[in-house]
Amino acid sequence: MRTINVAVLGLGTVGQGVVKVLREHEAVWPQKCGARIEVKKALEKYPDRPLDIEFPADAIVSDWKEVVDDPEIDVVVEVIGGIEPARTFILDALKHGKNVATANKDLLAVHGQEILNAAEAAGKDFFFEASVGGAIPIIGPLRQSLIASDIQHIIGIVNGTTNYILTRMASEGVRFDDALKDAQALGYAEVDPTADVDGIDAARKVAIMATLAFHSKVTLKDVYMEGIKEITPEDIKFAAKMGYAVKLLGICREEDQQIEARVHPALIPSDHPLASVNHTFNAIFVKGDAVDETMFYGRGAGRMPTASAIAGDVVEISRNILADCCGRIKSSSRGSAKAIRTIANVNTKFFLRMVLEDKPGVLAQVSKVFGEKEVSIAMVLQTNRDGDGAELVVITHKVREGNLWDALHVIEKMPITKKIITVLRVEGEE
Amino acid sequence: MRTINVAVLGLGTVGQGVVKVLREHEAVWPQKCGARIEVKKALEKYPDRPLDIEFPADAIVSDWKEVVDDPEIDVVVEVIGGIEPARTFILDALKHGKNVATANKDLLAVHGQEILNAAEAAGKDFFFEASVGGAIPIIGPLRQSLIASDIQHIIGIVNGTTNYILTRMASEGVRFDDALKDAQALGYAEVDPTADVDGIDAARKVAIMATLAFHSKVTLKDVYMEGIKEITPEDIKFAAKMGYAVKLLGICREEDQQIEARVHPALIPSDHPLASVNHTFNAIFVKGDAVDETMFYGRGAGRMPTASAIAGDVVEISRNILADCCGRIKSSSRGSAKAIRTIANVNTKFFLRMVLEDKPGVLAQVSKVFGEKEVSIAMVLQTNRDGDGAELVVITHKVREGNLWDALHVIEKMPITKKIITVLRVEGEE
Repeated sequence: MRTINVAVLGLGTVGQGVVKVLREHEAVWPQKCGARIEVKKALEKYPDRPLDIEFPADAIVSDWKEVVDDPEIDVVVEVIGGIEPARTFILDALKHGKNVATANKDLLAVHGQEILNAAEAAGKDFFFEASVGGAIPIIGPLRQSLIASDIQHIIGIVNGTTNYILTRMASEGVRFDDALKDAQALGYAEVDPTADVDGIDAARKVAIMATLAFHSKVTLKDVYMEGIKEITPEDIKFAAKMGYAVKLLGICREEDQQIEARVHPALIPSDHPLASVNHTFNAIFVKGDAVDETMFYGRGAGRMPTASAIAGDVVEISRNILADCCGRIKSSSRGSAKAIRTIANVNTKFFLRMVLEDKPGVLAQVSKVFGEKEVSIAMVLQTNRDGDGAELVVITHKVREGNLWDALHVIEKMPITKKIITVLRVEGEE
Repeated sequence: MRTINVAVLGLGTVGQGVVKVLREHEAVWPQKCGARIEVKKALEKYPDRPLDIEFPADAIVSDWKEVVDDPEIDVVVEVIGGIEPARTFILDALKHGKNVATANKDLLAVHGQEILNAAEAAGKDFFFEASVGGAIPIIGPLRQSLIASDIQHIIGIVNGTTNYILTRMASEGVRFDDALKDAQALGYAEVDPTADVDGIDAARKVAIMATLAFHSKVTLKDVYMEGIKEITPEDIKFAAKMGYAVKLLGICREEDQQIEARVHPALIPSDHPLASVNHTFNAIFVKGDAVDETMFYGRGAGRMPTASAIAGDVVEISRNILADCCGRIKSSSRGSAKAIRTIANVNTKFFLRMVLEDKPGVLAQVSKVFGEKEVSIAMVLQTNRDGDGAELVVITHKVREGNLWDALHVIEKMPITKKIITVLRVEGEE
């Protein structure tokens, strides 16, 4: 029986997890894929770093050449993260006839097409199931089971940190800063939480999903981004009163050959399957022409879930090695670059909160401006703020975003307007 | 560019759907999989049956020989359903070097292993994504993305008819018979609803999932089955009061090298992701050692969703044909037959409703019997039935099912017991 030899690049949390999963299931690989799978080497910049796992010291190398020039290595698992040296290692590995599995969303969101093309040129497998949604199978289904449907849109909760923060804000009414502190204390948020709370991490995943779903190159810079720092418990409370939850959503959509790709907090109806995805869980909702609605739910991060997805890729690669068909899934996005729709041209509903002077006729004045800019109102809630004016909470019908902002710029300058507090999009309903 | 030729066996609802999906996406197959895909022939017993689609009369054949002996046919899509002649056609097709995609759960639940073995012997693809959960990708993930985790259990809502009926009973308080009639009127239930309401359809899907998840042959006769006919709106109301929803669940679990496979109505906590899966939607919740919890949600039936899953299989087969690696995924269950745990040896919690005489001390008497049989009680609700005794609603801790029935057989014969109304299992919590 053949042994598939794996080299793991980076013995960090996930790298050690991959070694653990591959070893713990050692006995079942022959039954599951017809081969033995062994971790032969690890590349680690800091060979003295303390490990949670046992790993033979002489199998830890710090020189890339010792991996790429080793003819016995069949599969390279890249879990260093970041752009360089990961990009160079992966391209070099493919060129040397090795297959690659990675969880590296930072790299894929920027250089994904380059690497997919390189894999195709080399006739090797390049798999990245763990890059979006951690343990949730979404890359595989988008490339395989769902391939026969034209995907219309994808709406995902693809960042566990922000979902945890918003869940705490919704269930306990705590403010963003306090929820973030708790998330950091629990290890759900980094010391520098920027990539998560500003939506960058989610935007990377949107770029990867959009590329696969719409068979056209979409990169990080194509993704419109807003984070959750400005969300308040009051926003969440008003949204709930109107039948909505507030989530950080990663959205991509194709319409008229144009692609929308955006990440921002948004309201979503309470009975939408995404609304009850809480804490650090992730979920990805896919709508396609034949498949209709489908959703994938699970652990978006964590050592073992992520390692499970990477190890699944290694098993698939092993099957392809045995059947001599590495590279059998080609990139469907090669050479295609559909236009990206600017955010001003996107059509969505909006949730607005504004403080106006508390006197008769203010609603009429605001409505008039909305009407002139073709913003149609679906729902209004007017509440008194105890002498501090009247608060108007509005949900609009679908409107071109540019028109909404035109209206708000006029309203902002009207003498009756004290403050525009919140502008959030509303998703997940027609 | 190569053309992959498909023959569709059976031009019923789903068969026509497959033709529709393959044709409607004709222009994108080259980009998606590197080949053209064409439906060259259809086998139809009733060549004069009226069709919703255009299909050239001379491409409709009624003789199987015209399909299997046609060297141009690469892929056979079997959507006749039932055991024979589907089984013979599939085995014959594989023997003649054709790849096969099917949605046939009836056949797979009984003869799945035979066909998997035949496909392996022939070195051909045998794919069946549409057989469980319709459009929901679950077969692919179980064989690929989730393969690196040891699956501990799967809990699925895998029958849309019964889920629709239970949803109506829960939301409107209607009785089973009335909800069934509505389901029939809407086309969600057959004129003879037996296979759905008695749990047979769900049991077939459990057998298929268990075979893949536990890498061991599990067939329909291994699956314990109870339907939903006896469920009343009162059961659902009491369950809701205690924080649970009632669903028809398909469950498989591996513990100590023994497999549980069962279908029955059960309570599930209201905050469990399966509890909010309503109407005809399906969802499958998978728990594995590394992947942790993951759930797949979508359309479990319907022409286009089912056709989308089958067409996805055809695309995968086309890729394998181009890369000359059909048969690359082997059966992992070959030659393995782990023991099936009898229902008496299964450990679950229970929800019980019984009418006792309305006098002091009855709870003590019942509790004593439970204690003697090692049934430990977690929650009790006692209500007065207006002169018709007292109703006791109990939720137990986990208990061996045999012990629970031992206790109930004693309680049933006690003079204070008027009636045991309901015995339901409770799932989805530890």
